[in-house]
Amino acid sequence: MRARQAAARQDMGALIITPGADLRYLTGYDAKPLERLTALILRTDSDPVLVVPELEASAAAAACVEIDVITWAETDNPFAVVADRLAGTSDVAVDDHMWAERVLALQDVLPGTRIRLAGEVLRGLRSVKDADEVEALREAAQAIDRVHSRMAEWLRPGRTESAVGADIARAIVDEGHSRVDFVIVGSGPNGASPHHEVSDRTVEAGDPVVVDIGGTMPSGYCSDSTRTYIAGGAAPAPFQEAYAVLQQAQAAQRAHARAGVTAASVDEVGRSILRDAGYGDLFIHRTGHGIGLETHEEPYIVSGNNTALLPGMAFSIEPGFYLSDQYGARIEDIAVVTDNGLDVLNMTPRDLVTLG
Amino acid sequence: MRARQAAARQDMGALIITPGADLRYLTGYDAKPLERLTALILRTDSDPVLVVPELEASAAAAACVEIDVITWAETDNPFAVVADRLAGTSDVAVDDHMWAERVLALQDVLPGTRIRLAGEVLRGLRSVKDADEVEALREAAQAIDRVHSRMAEWLRPGRTESAVGADIARAIVDEGHSRVDFVIVGSGPNGASPHHEVSDRTVEAGDPVVVDIGGTMPSGYCSDSTRTYIAGGAAPAPFQEAYAVLQQAQAAQRAHARAGVTAASVDEVGRSILRDAGYGDLFIHRTGHGIGLETHEEPYIVSGNNTALLPGMAFSIEPGFYLSDQYGARIEDIAVVTDNGLDVLNMTPRDLVTLG
Repeated sequence: MRARQAAARQDMGALIITPGADLRYLTGYDAKPLERLTALILRTDSDPVLVVPELEASAAAAACVEIDVITWAETDNPFAVVADRLAGTSDVAVDDHMWAERVLALQDVLPGTRIRLAGEVLRGLRSVKDADEVEALREAAQAIDRVHSRMAEWLRPGRTESAVGADIARAIVDEGHSRVDFVIVGSGPNGASPHHEVSDRTVEAGDPVVVDIGGTMPSGYCSDSTRTYIAGGAAPAPFQEAYAVLQQAQAAQRAHARAGVTAASVDEVGRSILRDAGYGDLFIHRTGHGIGLETHEEPYIVSGNNTALLPGMAFSIEPGFYLSDQYGARIEDIAVVTDNGLDVLNMTPRDLVTLG
Repeated sequence: MRARQAAARQDMGALIITPGADLRYLTGYDAKPLERLTALILRTDSDPVLVVPELEASAAAAACVEIDVITWAETDNPFAVVADRLAGTSDVAVDDHMWAERVLALQDVLPGTRIRLAGEVLRGLRSVKDADEVEALREAAQAIDRVHSRMAEWLRPGRTESAVGADIARAIVDEGHSRVDFVIVGSGPNGASPHHEVSDRTVEAGDPVVVDIGGTMPSGYCSDSTRTYIAGGAAPAPFQEAYAVLQQAQAAQRAHARAGVTAASVDEVGRSILRDAGYGDLFIHRTGHGIGLETHEEPYIVSGNNTALLPGMAFSIEPGFYLSDQYGARIEDIAVVTDNGLDVLNMTPRDLVTLG
């Protein structure tokens, strides 16, 4: 298994992985994040084992047919069971999202052991998608594109953001996702807060509306795409001017991103276009984030990240501008670096569309 | 604020709370668990502050009107910002579910500081619900009761567990939840795995079917209720005999649970009835778990937990029996300890009902 080899190269004696995206990536097991400890123990010097509470044993065994399952009973101390399997290791790594109560419990039962983050090895593996993962991301992108293509059914002046959002949430599931992860409908001034979700505000004619939506497919892979719509009427002229620059910036970033360029340079290509047009201060977040089994993962497309992009890396390209108390705009696509360019997975048109 | 006083009594200099149920409990802020650090810093010797990434600032300020918000920019190190606010403290506690990457980052920036779990103080506060919280749990229980009352619309022989589960999931939202947390439809032998979810198995006439469902309400409070149905035809006679004993056991637990008795004694009252009837080995999990802003929280109703129940404690009472390769059964209600008894929030009848 590549994770074991990568861990050994980093002088890690073992990885300890609790439920979450890392566990699903390594084993396929989509375990719920419950209070009873489930943990994959991946020693670099022996076969992996999965420590699970008794009542998860059958589900775990069905999901992980090639891994030995060790069960603990309702009144056992599961950390003692884990420590027992780690005898002789002096350097272990835990998944980046392991709960604090577990990290401290492991530090207690493994007093002489250095505890590091498994992300040091798993980030590199997870950030480069294989062909099956790219197809899973493409299916997710197509599903969210179908939701955007139906926006005229729901978004029009006179409806509240909440009502529009509830319709979008139903459509995210109807179009093939197993779970809704987020629904942002930021109309007028609410669009100026990038992570606004929905509110009881009624959409007004001429409002720019930022619609940023995503979910998780049955495969576990995520979608995430933003378009900005005009809800009836005409958008303010200064908004239209800025939006034209935003379109140029996002297109330039898609043209630039490819194997060998740095993540930071993708950010800078778009930021410089917005800056040169006088909108630099309004682009208040990084350009993007990796995506896979989590909506936000490595690589982050941000100033300072001088990682060179590799074929298989998948991430969002989502520049925007935000003017307090007035409006905001964002254009977001998921793209995958290929051997000779960029495969943009979202196909929804990027022009401003007036609905309703 | 009671949390500050409780922390001071435990000689904790500060609590550091990241997004999750603890943050929502303390501030009302339902922050998403994103990769950019958001953290409430609750020093026992000064007013609380909320450290948030710049692009969450407006949402955070709107949610936490009484707390000072400090923002960090996209290229800052947020842990340095947190460490700065903790100057002079020698003992801090982090929320039990804080991510490992944050725990280790705090251990790095606070080298001389002892790091403990905030659960030591928050568990006690969160496990005793006030009147508003009890009403929020009652609304959640009534919403899931309405879903159970509609089970005949969906559950019948010839349909797959997945199809039944998809209908239930829609109804959980239609009946007032904002999120579906879990849908278990365990028909026939699948009912023998307590945490089975759904599968492509077709429900057959005479199958016992365990339906354990729950979601989160807009208030943040959770529902969780299980009933066991017969899908057409007649259940096997040995199943019916065992179910009658299970009903007795669950009723005895509801009659026993009250202020002053231990959590363990509630478990034992039901377990002994099943044991005396020869089903002891088939009841393979604890009796229940606390419930509130999380589906599973303190107090746990389990052998060995000699905590005395207090008025305001809310938890599930859910004994069951599980016979491998044949069937399972469980009856689950949420109940709240009152000054003079027990307030059982779920009202769905507990008799075996044949559907379809």
